[in-house]
Amino acid sequence: MSLQRHQIERVVTLALEEDAPFGDVTSQTFEPATTTATAELVTREPGIFAGADVFEVAMTALDDTIKVTLLTADGDRFDTGQVLARVEGSARVILQAERVALNLVQRMCGVATLTARYVEAVAGTRARVVDTRKTTPGLRALERHAVRCGGGHNHRYSLSDAVMAKDNHLAVIPDLTAALRQAKADLPHTTHIEVEVDRLEQLEAVLDSGAAGTIMLDNFSLDDLRTGVATIAGRALVEASGGITLDTIAEVARTGVDFISVGALTHSVRALDLGLDITVS
Amino acid sequence: MSLQRHQIERVVTLALEEDAPFGDVTSQTFEPATTTATAELVTREPGIFAGADVFEVAMTALDDTIKVTLLTADGDRFDTGQVLARVEGSARVILQAERVALNLVQRMCGVATLTARYVEAVAGTRARVVDTRKTTPGLRALERHAVRCGGGHNHRYSLSDAVMAKDNHLAVIPDLTAALRQAKADLPHTTHIEVEVDRLEQLEAVLDSGAAGTIMLDNFSLDDLRTGVATIAGRALVEASGGITLDTIAEVARTGVDFISVGALTHSVRALDLGLDITVS
Amino acid sequence: MSLQRHQIERVVTLALEEDAPFGDVTSQTFEPATTTATAELVTREPGIFAGADVFEVAMTALDDTIKVTLLTADGDRFDTGQVLARVEGSARVILQAERVALNLVQRMCGVATLTARYVEAVAGTRARVVDTRKTTPGLRALERHAVRCGGGHNHRYSLSDAVMAKDNHLAVIPDLTAALRQAKADLPHTTHIEVEVDRLEQLEAVLDSGAAGTIMLDNFSLDDLRTGVATIAGRALVEASGGITLDTIAEVARTGVDFISVGALTHSVRALDLGLDITVS
Amino acid sequence: MSLQRHQIERVVTLALEEDAPFGDVTSQTFEPATTTATAELVTREPGIFAGADVFEVAMTALDDTIKVTLLTADGDRFDTGQVLARVEGSARVILQAERVALNLVQRMCGVATLTARYVEAVAGTRARVVDTRKTTPGLRALERHAVRCGGGHNHRYSLSDAVMAKDNHLAVIPDLTAALRQAKADLPHTTHIEVEVDRLEQLEAVLDSGAAGTIMLDNFSLDDLRTGVATIAGRALVEASGGITLDTIAEVARTGVDFISVGALTHSVRALDLGLDITVS
Amino acid sequence: MSLQRHQIERVVTLALEEDAPFGDVTSQTFEPATTTATAELVTREPGIFAGADVFEVAMTALDDTIKVTLLTADGDRFDTGQVLARVEGSARVILQAERVALNLVQRMCGVATLTARYVEAVAGTRARVVDTRKTTPGLRALERHAVRCGGGHNHRYSLSDAVMAKDNHLAVIPDLTAALRQAKADLPHTTHIEVEVDRLEQLEAVLDSGAAGTIMLDNFSLDDLRTGVATIAGRALVEASGGITLDTIAEVARTGVDFISVGALTHSVRALDLGLDITVS
Amino acid sequence: MSLQRHQIERVVTLALEEDAPFGDVTSQTFEPATTTATAELVTREPGIFAGADVFEVAMTALDDTIKVTLLTADGDRFDTGQVLARVEGSARVILQAERVALNLVQRMCGVATLTARYVEAVAGTRARVVDTRKTTPGLRALERHAVRCGGGHNHRYSLSDAVMAKDNHLAVIPDLTAALRQAKADLPHTTHIEVEVDRLEQLEAVLDSGAAGTIMLDNFSLDDLRTGVATIAGRALVEASGGITLDTIAEVARTGVDFISVGALTHSVRALDLGLDITVS
Repeated sequence: MSLQRHQIERVVTLALEEDAPFGDVTSQTFEPATTTATAELVTREPGIFAGADVFEVAMTALDDTIKVTLLTADGDRFDTGQVLARVEGSARVILQAERVALNLVQRMCGVATLTARYVEAVAGTRARVVDTRKTTPGLRALERHAVRCGGGHNHRYSLSDAVMAKDNHLAVIPDLTAALRQAKADLPHTTHIEVEVDRLEQLEAVLDSGAAGTIMLDNFSLDDLRTGVATIAGRALVEASGGITLDTIAEVARTGVDFISVGALTHSVRALDLGLDITVS
Repeated sequence: MSLQRHQIERVVTLALEEDAPFGDVTSQTFEPATTTATAELVTREPGIFAGADVFEVAMTALDDTIKVTLLTADGDRFDTGQVLARVEGSARVILQAERVALNLVQRMCGVATLTARYVEAVAGTRARVVDTRKTTPGLRALERHAVRCGGGHNHRYSLSDAVMAKDNHLAVIPDLTAALRQAKADLPHTTHIEVEVDRLEQLEAVLDSGAAGTIMLDNFSLDDLRTGVATIAGRALVEASGGITLDTIAEVARTGVDFISVGALTHSVRALDLGLDITVS
Repeated sequence: MSLQRHQIERVVTLALEEDAPFGDVTSQTFEPATTTATAELVTREPGIFAGADVFEVAMTALDDTIKVTLLTADGDRFDTGQVLARVEGSARVILQAERVALNLVQRMCGVATLTARYVEAVAGTRARVVDTRKTTPGLRALERHAVRCGGGHNHRYSLSDAVMAKDNHLAVIPDLTAALRQAKADLPHTTHIEVEVDRLEQLEAVLDSGAAGTIMLDNFSLDDLRTGVATIAGRALVEASGGITLDTIAEVARTGVDFISVGALTHSVRALDLGLDITVS
Repeated sequence: MSLQRHQIERVVTLALEEDAPFGDVTSQTFEPATTTATAELVTREPGIFAGADVFEVAMTALDDTIKVTLLTADGDRFDTGQVLARVEGSARVILQAERVALNLVQRMCGVATLTARYVEAVAGTRARVVDTRKTTPGLRALERHAVRCGGGHNHRYSLSDAVMAKDNHLAVIPDLTAALRQAKADLPHTTHIEVEVDRLEQLEAVLDSGAAGTIMLDNFSLDDLRTGVATIAGRALVEASGGITLDTIAEVARTGVDFISVGALTHSVRALDLGLDITVS
Repeated sequence: MSLQRHQIERVVTLALEEDAPFGDVTSQTFEPATTTATAELVTREPGIFAGADVFEVAMTALDDTIKVTLLTADGDRFDTGQVLARVEGSARVILQAERVALNLVQRMCGVATLTARYVEAVAGTRARVVDTRKTTPGLRALERHAVRCGGGHNHRYSLSDAVMAKDNHLAVIPDLTAALRQAKADLPHTTHIEVEVDRLEQLEAVLDSGAAGTIMLDNFSLDDLRTGVATIAGRALVEASGGITLDTIAEVARTGVDFISVGALTHSVRALDLGLDITVS
Repeated sequence: MSLQRHQIERVVTLALEEDAPFGDVTSQTFEPATTTATAELVTREPGIFAGADVFEVAMTALDDTIKVTLLTADGDRFDTGQVLARVEGSARVILQAERVALNLVQRMCGVATLTARYVEAVAGTRARVVDTRKTTPGLRALERHAVRCGGGHNHRYSLSDAVMAKDNHLAVIPDLTAALRQAKADLPHTTHIEVEVDRLEQLEAVLDSGAAGTIMLDNFSLDDLRTGVATIAGRALVEASGGITLDTIAEVARTGVDFISVGALTHSVRALDLGLDITVS
C-alpha cells in the first residue's frame, strides 16, 4: 500500500493555503522572481524515512518546475547528517514551501521511527504492532503510511471498513451471542468483525457466535492475556490493547497474541529533527 | 481571539469524513436508531482545558439534536477525574463522533498544558512565550488557540501577515540596510517586519535601516543574548529562538528579551489523557 | 446500515445544482413567492420502497420550512396507487425539487424492487444475493442502501475496504500460494481477501495459502460450481458470479454457494413509476 | 455540442474517489509499482459509441502517463467484438480505473444505442426525438451527450434555461393568456417558453397569448394529436409527450408533431456490455 | 426571477472568508463576546434598492441569531437618509459582517439605480433595456437581479443558455444561411439563436435562414438602425448594441428596436453611498 | 508582492464556470473543433497595465495548448491602439474565454489607471495613496495587485492581519488608554494596531497608550489634519481618510500625513476599454 497521489495533494494544498492565505510576503519582498536556489533535506538525528512522495508534492505543488531528487526511499534507515533529498528551482517557491514540507515529513519520520522501536521490541514473537484511529485529524493516510514504513501494520482504516464492537456498543444487548450472529448475517461477508472484551468471562459468548474474526483483550493482565490466548485457541485472532508501552510490549508479545495495538504510534508523536539547508544563488 | 465557528466546522467535517467515509458500521449494526446515551468527557490527568467549542462542534456536527453541556471554559485548569463536559443524545451519533472529538481536544489540551509550563517558567520576567509555524498542517487555528489557552502568545499566523526575513532570504542581498528600507517603503504600513540575525555583527545593518519592528536572535548564547538586548536598546523588539527547552527558558528570559519562540509547543505534543465515558441507556 | 445524512445531502445538493444552475425560471415566473402547495408521492406500480430519507432531504434542501410526512418505511412493500409520503410548503420550492426527488427515489425503488425478485428466487437456499461495484457513479451509497431495502446484501463498498484478486491481478504472479500468504501477512487483519478463480484447477493453490476468506467462482457451470463447493468444503466462503439472471439464479443457489453477486441489481435499473401529485392552493 | 473537459473531470474525480476512498488495496498488494499493462475496450454486443472523452479522462485521471488511443468516434456504430480503444501504462492504475471507466461508458453507450432505435423508428417524419430531465442525478451532461451521439436531440438543459409551464404551474392562474403575455414581457427575450397542455380546449388560451414558442401535448390520443397539430397550424412548435414507447413512436411521429420527448432514453437505461481486456506484462 | 438562496450564500461565504481568513482581530480584541449592537442600513443618496436577501444573508451567515428586519423591498425607490433595514445581535458579528454586506449591497443598488435611469430614458418606446455578460466575475446572478430591480431586462445568462453568433464565429463560414439552418436543426428547440450583424448587407443571409430569433445590429448609425428595423420587418426581434449611453439611448429607442443592450449597466458601476450606523450597547 | 497562481486560478475557474455552466453553445455550433484563431489584446484608450498573469490564466485555463505571449508587463503605461498580448490556439476556446479574460483585465487596468492618477496628484509629498477593504467581493487579491501596479500601496489585507479600531469598536470602552495597552499586551507582536480618531480631543488617550502604530484621522478638516500631524509628532504614523477625491487629495497630502486611503480606487471602478481582436483562420 502506497499513498494515493490525490490524497497527498489534498493535504498539501490545504496546508499551503493555511500557511499563506494571501502569499509569502517575505519571499516576494526579498527574492527577485528569477532567483534560484538549491536545498537539501538533511537529517539532524537518526531515524526511519517516511514521506518521500509527500515531500515531493509539497515542494512542487506551487510550481511544477521545481525539481526534486529523492536520495532515500520510504522505510530506509538514516543517520545524522544524511541528505535525504535535493531540491532545485525558484528561491521564492522553495522558501514558501519549506515549512509545510518539513512539518509533514518530520511528523511522518517521527511516526516511522517510533514504530520501528516498537516493532524491534517484539522481534521473535508472532505479534504484529498495529496502529489505531488515534491519528491526527486530516493526516490519517499519511500517518498510517508512516507506520508501515516503520515496519508496523495497519488496523482498520476507519469506522466504515470493519466492525469493532466495544463495551459501549454491547452495553444494552441482552444476548450477545445472538447479536453477533445476526450482525454476521447482515453485514457484507467482507466486513471483518472484531469484538472487544474486558474480562475473560465474556469470551465464551463471543466465541459461541462464530462471528468474531478477532477478539480484542482490553487492559488484560499478562496472566489473563495468556489465559485468553489459550481459551480462544485459534478460533479467532487475538489483539492486545490498552496502555501498552515500549517497556511492556515485549512481555505482552510473548503471551502469544497476534496483534498489539499502540495508540502512541500516532497520537503523541515527536517530530523528527530534519532541516532544509537552502542555498540561494 | 476566539476560534471562528466556520474554521472549527471545516476541521471537524474533514475529520469525521476521514473517519467514516461510508458510515459507522459498528454503531449502525449494534445500536438501534432510537437508542440514546449520555457521555461525560472525563480527565485522566491534570491539565489546562482548550477546545470547548471544538468539542461541541464535533459532537453535534452529525446531528444537531445532540445536547452538549460544557462544565469548563477554555483556559481553566483541571484535575484528574474531573468532568469537563456532558453529552446527551443518539447513541449511534455519540459513538461515531467520539474518536474525532477526543483526537482534537486531547491534542489541544496537550498544547495548552505544555504551554502553561513554559509560561510558568518565565514568570517574573518581561518575556512572552510565543508559538511558531511548526503546527500540525490543517490544525493551525486550533493549536494557536490552545497556546493562548495555556497563557502563551501567538506569533504571526502565516507567511502572509508579517515579514520574517531569515538568513536564506537575505543571503544574496548586497546591501541589507538598503533592502530593509526599501521593503518598509513598499509594504503595507500594517505589515510588521521581523529580521532574524545569527551573529551580533549583523545587528547594526538591521538597526540602521529603521525598518525592523522585531529582531530575532537565533541560537545565541546567553551572553550574546544579553549583549544583543543591550545593543538593540529598545530600537526594536527582541525575540530569542532556537532549541530553547523547559530547562533553559528561564535563563533565556532573564536576558531581557521580549519574546521566546518555542516550536515544541505544537510540533511534538503529547495528547492529554481524556476519555469519554459513555452510558448507553 | 442506514444512509448517512451528509452522504444524502451531497448527492441531493449536486443534483439540485445540476438541475437549476441559475434558478427555476418557470416557477419563479408563474408562482407568487407566497403560494403554497401540497404534494403526494404516489405509486403507479407495485414495488419495494427505498429512499425515505433521500426524498425528505431532496424536498427540504432548498427550504427547510417544507414539511415532509413519510407514510412508508424503507423496505416496505407497496401497491399501485399508494401514497408513500406527503409534502407541504412553498409551491415554488416543491415544483423546483420535484424532478430531483423523483429521479433519485424512482431509481432506488427500482433497485430495491428488482433485488427483491432475485432474493425471492433463492428463497430456501443458503445463498445471499449481493451487489457489485457496477453502480451508478456518484450514487453508490444510495444504490447499496436500496439493495438492502430489497433484502439483498452488500459486497465490499469499494476498492479500498477489501481485497478482490482477479485474473488480471494474478496474471504475472509466479507463485500464487506464496503471494496470497504474503498479502495476508502484510494487510490489516481486518481486510478480507477474496480471490477470483476461473477454473477448478486454480482452487488448490488458493486454498493452500490459507489466505482467502472468500473464493469467487467466475462463470462456472452448475456442475463446476457443485464441484467447487465440495472442494472448498468450508475452508473459504464461496461466491458465484458471472451473467447470472433471474432465470438461472435459483439453480445456482442450489449448488450450495454462499453468495451470488448480480451486477444487474444496479447497472441497468428500470426506474419505478412514481409520481408527485401536486395541488397548488 | 461536445462535452466540456472540466464537466467530465468533475464526474470522473467524484467516481474515482467514491470507488477508492483510501486506495485500491488489491492492485497495490499484487502489482509492483513498475508493472505495466495494456488494455482493450472491447464490445460484447453491437451498438452506438458514446463517451470517448469520458473513457480517456477516466483512464488518465489518476496518472497522466497512461496512454489512451481511441479507435472509434462518438456516434459511430460498432459490432460485437470490436476494439473501441487501447490503453497502455501502469498496471495498478489501469486496474484501479477500470470499473469507473466502464460504469460510465457502458451507460453512455446504452443511452446512445437506445436513442438510435427511437430515432430510426421516426425516420421519414419531421419529428425529432428529444430527451427529458429524467436523467441520472450528476450525469446529465454525459447522458445528454449520449443522446446526441445516438442521433437524438436535447430538450432544455435544466430548469434555468427555458420555461416549461405545466399544469401545476398554471393551476391557480385566473387568466392564462394574460399570464403568458406577462411572462413573455418579463423574461429575457432569449428564454423560450413552452406550455404543456392536457386537453385540446386549452389550446386557444395559449395560442392567443402569442407567447408560447412550443406547446407540449401531454398524453394525447393520436386523433387529438392530429387535431392539435392542425389547430396550432405553425403558430408554435408542437411536442408530443407521455408514455411513448418504441412500439408507439412511429404513429405519434406521423401525426405531424415536431418533437417527441422520451423519458426512457435516460431514466431506465440498460448498460451496454463492454469489457476491458487487460494484459499485464 | 428572484435570487436563489444558495447562490447568495456561496457569494457571501466566499466574501466573508476573503475578508477574514483567520478571524476579525479587532472585534475580538475590543468587543466582549456578549456585547450586543443594533445597526441601521442608511442611505446617503437617493436610489433604487436591490439586495434585500443579500443583506440578510451577509449579516446572518456568521451567526444565525442575528436578527434582520427589512424595511424596503427590492425595486423600491429611496431618498437620502432613509433606513432600509435594521440589524440586532452580537456586536462582534455585526462589525465583522459590515463591510461585506455593504460592498455587495452598495454595488447592487448602484446597478439598479443606474439601470433605472436608462429605463426612464426610453420610456414611451417599445425598447427594453437589457444587460450583457460584462458583469463582475462571480457576481453575475446578483448584478442581473439588480438590473431587474432597476426595471431593466436580462439578456441570456451565459454562454450556455442561448446562441449569440458574432462576427468571429461567422468569420470562416462559407454559406451563412446554410450554417444557421443547420444550427437550428441541431440545437435544442428551446435554444434561442441571436445573430450579430455589422452591416445592413448581411441581413438578407440571416433572414433567409429563418433561424435567427433575434438580430443584433452592432454599432449601427441611427439611420441604419431604422433601415434595419424596416428590413427585418418583424421576421426577427431586433437588438441595438455598441457604445450606447444615457445621452444617446432615447434616439436609439425611437428607431423601433426591441432591445438595447448596455454593458455599462454592470461593467463600471459606481457603488451607491450607503452606511451601516451601528450602536454598540 | 505578485499574485499567487492558485489565487488567480480560483477566480478564473469560478468565472468561467459562471459564464458557461454547460458549455459555449455558440462556439461549439459554429466552430469546428480543429479551427484555430489568433487574438490580440488591444487598448482602446491609454492607461496602466495590470493583470498579465490573470489574462494568461484565463486564456489557458480551459485548454493548456493555448499559447499566450505577453507584450507588456504589469505597471507599464500604454497608449491607445497598443497590443498588450497575443493569443494563439483553438478558436472555440479563445472565443469561450474572451469575455472572462476581458472582464477581469479591464477592471484591473481600470483600478491601476485610476490609482496612478491619485498617486501623481500627491507627487512631491510624503503621502502614500493606500487602498481600503471596499474591494469587489471575491476579487480582493486582484484589485490590490492592480493598486500596486498603479503605484499605490496596500492597506491591511483583511480583518485578520491587522487591528483597525473604529468608533464602533471603542464605543463602550470606559478607559481607552487602558484598553489599547491591554490589546497590545494580548495580540501577537506582529499585529499592527491602527486607531481611528474622529476628533482632535481623542488623540491624547490614544497616544498615551503607546499602542497605536498608526492613527487614522477620519473626516478631518485640513486645519485639523495639520494640528493632528503636529500633535502626533512622529509618535505614530498618520492616515487621512474620508471622502478624499482627486480634487482634494493634493491639499490633504500637503498636511504632512503619511497615508491617504481612498475607497474609490476599487469600489466604483470604470473598466478600461480593451478589446480582443480575434482572427479565425
